[in-house]
Amino acid sequence: MTTDFEVFEAGDVRLHSGETLADARLAYVTHGTLNAAKDNAIVFATRVGGTHAENGYLIGPGHALNPERWFIVVPNQLGNGLSSSPSNTPAPQDRARFPAIDHHDNVALQRRLMTEVFGVERLALAVGFSMGGQQAYHWAVDFPGAVARLAAICCTARTTPHTEVFVEGLKAALTTDPAWNGGNYDAQPRAGFNAFARVWAGWGLSQAFYRRRGFEAMGFATVDAFLTDFWEARYHAADANNMLSMLTTWRASDVSNTAAHGGDLTVALGSITAKTLVLPGQTDLYFPPEDNEIETAMIAGAKCRVIPSDYGHSAGGGANPDDVAFLDAALGEFLQAEA
Amino acid sequence: MTTDFEVFEAGDVRLHSGETLADARLAYVTHGTLNAAKDNAIVFATRVGGTHAENGYLIGPGHALNPERWFIVVPNQLGNGLSSSPSNTPAPQDRARFPAIDHHDNVALQRRLMTEVFGVERLALAVGFSMGGQQAYHWAVDFPGAVARLAAICCTARTTPHTEVFVEGLKAALTTDPAWNGGNYDAQPRAGFNAFARVWAGWGLSQAFYRRRGFEAMGFATVDAFLTDFWEARYHAADANNMLSMLTTWRASDVSNTAAHGGDLTVALGSITAKTLVLPGQTDLYFPPEDNEIETAMIAGAKCRVIPSDYGHSAGGGANPDDVAFLDAALGEFLQAEA
Repeated sequence: MTTDFEVFEAGDVRLHSGETLADARLAYVTHGTLNAAKDNAIVFATRVGGTHAENGYLIGPGHALNPERWFIVVPNQLGNGLSSSPSNTPAPQDRARFPAIDHHDNVALQRRLMTEVFGVERLALAVGFSMGGQQAYHWAVDFPGAVARLAAICCTARTTPHTEVFVEGLKAALTTDPAWNGGNYDAQPRAGFNAFARVWAGWGLSQAFYRRRGFEAMGFATVDAFLTDFWEARYHAADANNMLSMLTTWRASDVSNTAAHGGDLTVALGSITAKTLVLPGQTDLYFPPEDNEIETAMIAGAKCRVIPSDYGHSAGGGANPDDVAFLDAALGEFLQAEA
Repeated sequence: MTTDFEVFEAGDVRLHSGETLADARLAYVTHGTLNAAKDNAIVFATRVGGTHAENGYLIGPGHALNPERWFIVVPNQLGNGLSSSPSNTPAPQDRARFPAIDHHDNVALQRRLMTEVFGVERLALAVGFSMGGQQAYHWAVDFPGAVARLAAICCTARTTPHTEVFVEGLKAALTTDPAWNGGNYDAQPRAGFNAFARVWAGWGLSQAFYRRRGFEAMGFATVDAFLTDFWEARYHAADANNMLSMLTTWRASDVSNTAAHGGDLTVALGSITAKTLVLPGQTDLYFPPEDNEIETAMIAGAKCRVIPSDYGHSAGGGANPDDVAFLDAALGEFLQAEA
C-alpha cells in the first residue's frame, strides 16, 4: 500500500445523497510547483481500483503533464482505499455501511482541496481516465468558472445503460462468492475476485487485441496464463467493499443529476465553458466512441480525438506505449493552446 | 422440459478425446418429409443452452426452412439436456464426470443419424446459429462430400482467443457459487446462474441496442428489470453441469483440430466443398464480423452477408423479427440457387 501521500481532512461532509460522511479524508499527491499566479494547476483524478500511483504514465518531464511547467494534483477518489473508503472508515460507516458516493461528492472535496489548501480558484486543466475522466466532466459541470480546460479519456459524462449492465455483471461475479458475506468478511472473497477479474478480462481489451494475441507481447504465453497471472493477479491487493463502492459510483455517474440540471444531459453538458477535448479509445468496449460523439455534440466547441488503438479501454490507461505517446501529444497540444 | 422428440440410440461412441461415451443418445425432431431422392434434407443444429424448440424461428411455411419443400432435422447438441448430457447420463459418466464433448463428436453422431436412420448421404444444407453454426462448419469440414450447402449464422469455425476469455468469464461466474460444489449439487447454483446471466447480458446484445433502450420495446422498463426478469429468468430451468459441458465444447470449437488438418485452419476451411454463406451480426460482440471475414476468405467461393442489426449476437437467434426476415430472405435465396 502506498503511504507517500498527503491527506486533506475535510471534516463532516454532506453528500449528494443527503447523507453525511463523517471525518472525510481526501488523499492526494502533487507534482511540480504552483506558480505565483496560481494558474498552472491541473487536477488528474483516479480510475476505478487505482490510486494516484496509476496516474504516473502521463506525468513527468517529456510527458504532457510536465511538473516543470504544471502543478499537478492527483486526488484519490473516494472508495479507493486511500481517501475515505469502506476499508478505512470507522463504524458506523465502515465496510458495506459506507455511504454511497457520487462523483459530485468526489469533485466537491477536490474543489475544497484546491481552494482551501492551495488557494487555486481556477484549474488550467481537469483531466482523467475512465472514472477519473468522469470526475473531470463533473468538475467542468459543477464548477464551470473554475475549469479552463477539460480532457476526458475513455469515459462518458453519464453512464450508459450498456455500461450499467457491464458494471452489474462485475458486481454479481464478485458478490456471488459467499465469502463476501454482505461485506462482513475477514479475508477477501478470493474466488469472487477471480471471477470478477475473468469477466473484466473480456471487456478491458478489444476483440482485435485478442485476435492478434496481444497478450503474448505482454509476456503471457496463453489465454489461461493471461487470465490467471495478469487479470486475477491484478486484484490480489484489492478490497471488495472498496471495489463495490467505486462500482456503485461508476454506475451512478451522471453530470446532470443535480437540482441545477434536473437530469437533462443536454443542459448539463451545454453549461460547460471549459475548452474540451474528448479522447475515446477506438476499440473501447464499454466506453465506445459513439457515446462520446453524442456527448461531444452537446458541448460547445468540444473536440473529439479517437485513440487509434486495439487496446480497447486499456488504450487510455497507460498499458501501451504508443497510446501513451498519442495522449501525450494530444494533451500537450491542448495545453499549449489558449484556453 | 420438452418431451416431443425422437431419440437415436447410438450405442457406445468413441469421442474425439479418445474417451468412450456409453450408450450415447441423440435427441432430435424432424419437420417435413424426406423425398424419394433423399436430396432435400437439412440439418439445423442447436445453440448453447437451447434445444430444438429454440430453432423454430426459421422453420415453417413462409420461412426459409419450409417443411413443404425441405426435410429439416434438428439434432440437439450433446450436453443440452435432451441428447446425452451430464444431467441424464448414468454413473460413472454422470454430472461433472460426463466426458468433454467436441463438435466433431456432435456432427459424427448427427452423420450417423442421417445415414443409419434416414439413409441420407448428402445434406442439401447444414445450418445453425452460434454453437449450432459451429456444428454446421464441422459438418462441412468433416464430411466434405456430404454437404451441398453450408450456412453459418453468428459464429466462427474456430473459437477466437477473445471468445475463449468471454466463455471463461461465464464459467467463473457460474462456478464461484459454492452451491455448484464441483458439479455435485442437489439444487442448481441459483446465485451462480444469476451472476452468469448478468455477465451474459452485457455481451448478448450490443452497445447500440442498450443505447436506444431496446429492452423497453421488449417489455422491460428498466435496466434492472431486464437483468432480473429477462436474463436471470432465462436460466431458471438450466442445469449447471449441462451448461458447463456446452461451454467447454464451445471454447474448444475448432474445425481444424483433427489428424486430417493438424490444426491448420487455412487447410481445414480450404477443404470445404459446400457452397457457403456466412451470416454474422453487424454488432455481435463475441462473434464480430471481422472474424468471419478472415475465415470466409479461406473458403472457396464463400459469401458473407452481414445482418444489419443492433441486436448484437441475438440478431441471429430469432430475438428480432426484422433480423429473422433478413435471415429468411438470405437463406431462401441461398437454397433457391444451385449448390
